[in-house]
Amino acid sequence: MKQSQLFGKTLREDPKDEVSANAKLLERGGFIYKTMAGVYDYLPLGWRVLEKIKGIIREEMNAIGGQEVSMTTLQPKERWEKTARWKELGEEVMYQFKDHSGREIGLAATHEEPLTEIALRSIHSYKDLPLFIYQMQTKFRDELRAKSGLIRGRELLMKDLYSFHKDEKDFKHFYFNTVDKAYKKVFQSCGLDVYVTEAAGGSFTKEHTHEYQVLSEAGEDLIFYCSGCRFAQNKEISSFKIGDKCPKCKGEIQSSKSIEVGNIFPLGIKYSKSLGLVYSDEKGGKEFVTMGSYGIGVSRLMGTIVEVYHDEMGIIWPEAVAPFKVHLLELKSSESAVKNFAVKLYKDLLAKGVEVLYDDRSDKTAGEKFADSDLVGIPWRIVISEKTVEKKRIEVKKRLDKGVKLISVADFFKKINV
Amino acid sequence: MKQSQLFGKTLREDPKDEVSANAKLLERGGFIYKTMAGVYDYLPLGWRVLEKIKGIIREEMNAIGGQEVSMTTLQPKERWEKTARWKELGEEVMYQFKDHSGREIGLAATHEEPLTEIALRSIHSYKDLPLFIYQMQTKFRDELRAKSGLIRGRELLMKDLYSFHKDEKDFKHFYFNTVDKAYKKVFQSCGLDVYVTEAAGGSFTKEHTHEYQVLSEAGEDLIFYCSGCRFAQNKEISSFKIGDKCPKCKGEIQSSKSIEVGNIFPLGIKYSKSLGLVYSDEKGGKEFVTMGSYGIGVSRLMGTIVEVYHDEMGIIWPEAVAPFKVHLLELKSSESAVKNFAVKLYKDLLAKGVEVLYDDRSDKTAGEKFADSDLVGIPWRIVISEKTVEKKRIEVKKRLDKGVKLISVADFFKKINV
Repeated sequence: MKQSQLFGKTLREDPKDEVSANAKLLERGGFIYKTMAGVYDYLPLGWRVLEKIKGIIREEMNAIGGQEVSMTTLQPKERWEKTARWKELGEEVMYQFKDHSGREIGLAATHEEPLTEIALRSIHSYKDLPLFIYQMQTKFRDELRAKSGLIRGRELLMKDLYSFHKDEKDFKHFYFNTVDKAYKKVFQSCGLDVYVTEAAGGSFTKEHTHEYQVLSEAGEDLIFYCSGCRFAQNKEISSFKIGDKCPKCKGEIQSSKSIEVGNIFPLGIKYSKSLGLVYSDEKGGKEFVTMGSYGIGVSRLMGTIVEVYHDEMGIIWPEAVAPFKVHLLELKSSESAVKNFAVKLYKDLLAKGVEVLYDDRSDKTAGEKFADSDLVGIPWRIVISEKTVEKKRIEVKKRLDKGVKLISVADFFKKINV
Repeated sequence: MKQSQLFGKTLREDPKDEVSANAKLLERGGFIYKTMAGVYDYLPLGWRVLEKIKGIIREEMNAIGGQEVSMTTLQPKERWEKTARWKELGEEVMYQFKDHSGREIGLAATHEEPLTEIALRSIHSYKDLPLFIYQMQTKFRDELRAKSGLIRGRELLMKDLYSFHKDEKDFKHFYFNTVDKAYKKVFQSCGLDVYVTEAAGGSFTKEHTHEYQVLSEAGEDLIFYCSGCRFAQNKEISSFKIGDKCPKCKGEIQSSKSIEVGNIFPLGIKYSKSLGLVYSDEKGGKEFVTMGSYGIGVSRLMGTIVEVYHDEMGIIWPEAVAPFKVHLLELKSSESAVKNFAVKLYKDLLAKGVEVLYDDRSDKTAGEKFADSDLVGIPWRIVISEKTVEKKRIEVKKRLDKGVKLISVADFFKKINV
């Protein structure tokens, strides 16, 4: 992509109404546009990052047998009255209104009710179980405070997986082994170090649920954890304090603010009972289906990565989620050899399937180009200038490197394995 | 994918509350689930078809320089008051309501206002033009009547492209050449024969707009057209009647109901004027940006394909949009050789990258499997039975073939080029 044609320009100043680093840097870098508090548009750079994250999640969900669907945003009141959540969610986060004919409608803040209803048509026998259904879909939540950029959105992209099982044993295996492993792979691919944190189960389970927490001062959670054995508890259930002995490894308990990037949640038979989801077991008896739900905040993940990976100059994308792999900067020159060199390298990189953003802008100084490159945070920066062309080399720098290297194009291709 | 594990079972009976063929067949086939009139969930089979269609559209949009973004559903009232469309759309199709804090919000039914506002940050000079921005995103429209399945939805998936130009000449070239060609490719790839139909321009252009119409009794439009030279006009602007001479080729004018699968629309400077989108021209003067908008109903396209491609037994997917390429049916047998043969073929097909749905269900008769296969409409049907295994052959039939062929696996691979 040529940067002269890229939709979404960088801004010199931080947006005035943002406090969080992710919102400031993503808006300044031209990744997102703020329509309202907690409601962001994704411009081409941001859209590319989001697609990368979705790809990572989709791969792991498919690998554990997940089937992708897409459920609706518009929701009829009647469906949510069966679980008493029309009133409960309506008082908190669910947008609810009447359509032109007077019918009461809500915007889906989560999808347990719709999927359980849909499953009535697919689950009849123990032979139909287990089932793992997921989607990546926009959720709407009327959050009181939405001031952490992509960390807490009113319109947010989520991956929500739901599982259906014949019994607790089958559920627990999927929950503690299959999903937990897949989640850890997802976060690792995104470059994030997570603490699997015990948390409260809400009103219908006495067991703990589990949150995937990333240590960050931008977080709204507070966890107590042991960096040795990775034991962690959310403040809401924890009786530990800083300096206590870890109950598992006798290490020292620490505390930190953190961002919840995912959670896994036993649903028991709450929804199957309310909506009548039963199956015939091997002996012909009728049993309620045991369920679990498993969320990952996709847009929140994007915000979290920026919170963890940035410095005073801008974002530092981990390669797997970067909008482009290479940022090719052509510096202004009266010699046509510079442009020719840059154009040829751009085409060669594209031909090798490398995602490259080519800063071909003729009205920007070298300083402006360097500043934009640091802000946008693409992993590899290449500079083509009169000096490099003369030496038949290119100037290469990774985003966090202090110095630059002058190497041949062939050596750079080797470095990035193309 | 093994059919025994597929989420979304086929139904023997038509859903009672549907009248259109696309809704009946897609719901019976397990592609969609009806949450409300005009509001459908996409189950795994339907989700796959939708992704295929999105892939076709995305390829053509990228090929003409389109940059993909994702704009928000939640929209602030103030933005839409600048173009007086808060009231205009609010009376018709826009869902509008107050959030918990009393702020007035609408659900986006289209995205001219948001994108024009966002473009204020990116378009300053003639050097920033032209720009082509698109998204594939859910739109919300409170349609009075929503009884044609996916043809007219309240929650619908659309591809909307917007173009920004320095003048009418540049706009017209993009409109009449670039987009028109890309749209024809999209519809051709989906197996649809479209008439580019002149239609009324609405309140702000005296020129015609152009609709891409597919002849179908399920359509809500009526067009007058010439099958010889492809001249076509929407009834709303046409002065022709059946049997008239075509004004272009002297052929005979015919008439048909039709489905509008896409449209292209000159916006002139309506939105740039209302929202202040100006650029500096070569001489330093200020000009309003000329715009166009270009829609394709993605979910409507799925419904239209079913309207065009079905028979009394079910759907007949064109290969490019089929949820799977091959439907592999294993018929019940006490001989393990049948299952072994089927499993091996299933694995070989997967290894060759062929998308295959493997009907491994042990509780279905041959008749039920054949009926489901005709209903779901996957292009290639393969049957493995005691008879075929004995002859070391497989039974192959394309969805519309009358008879079957017994051929070797190697010959089948050749047939599908793998």
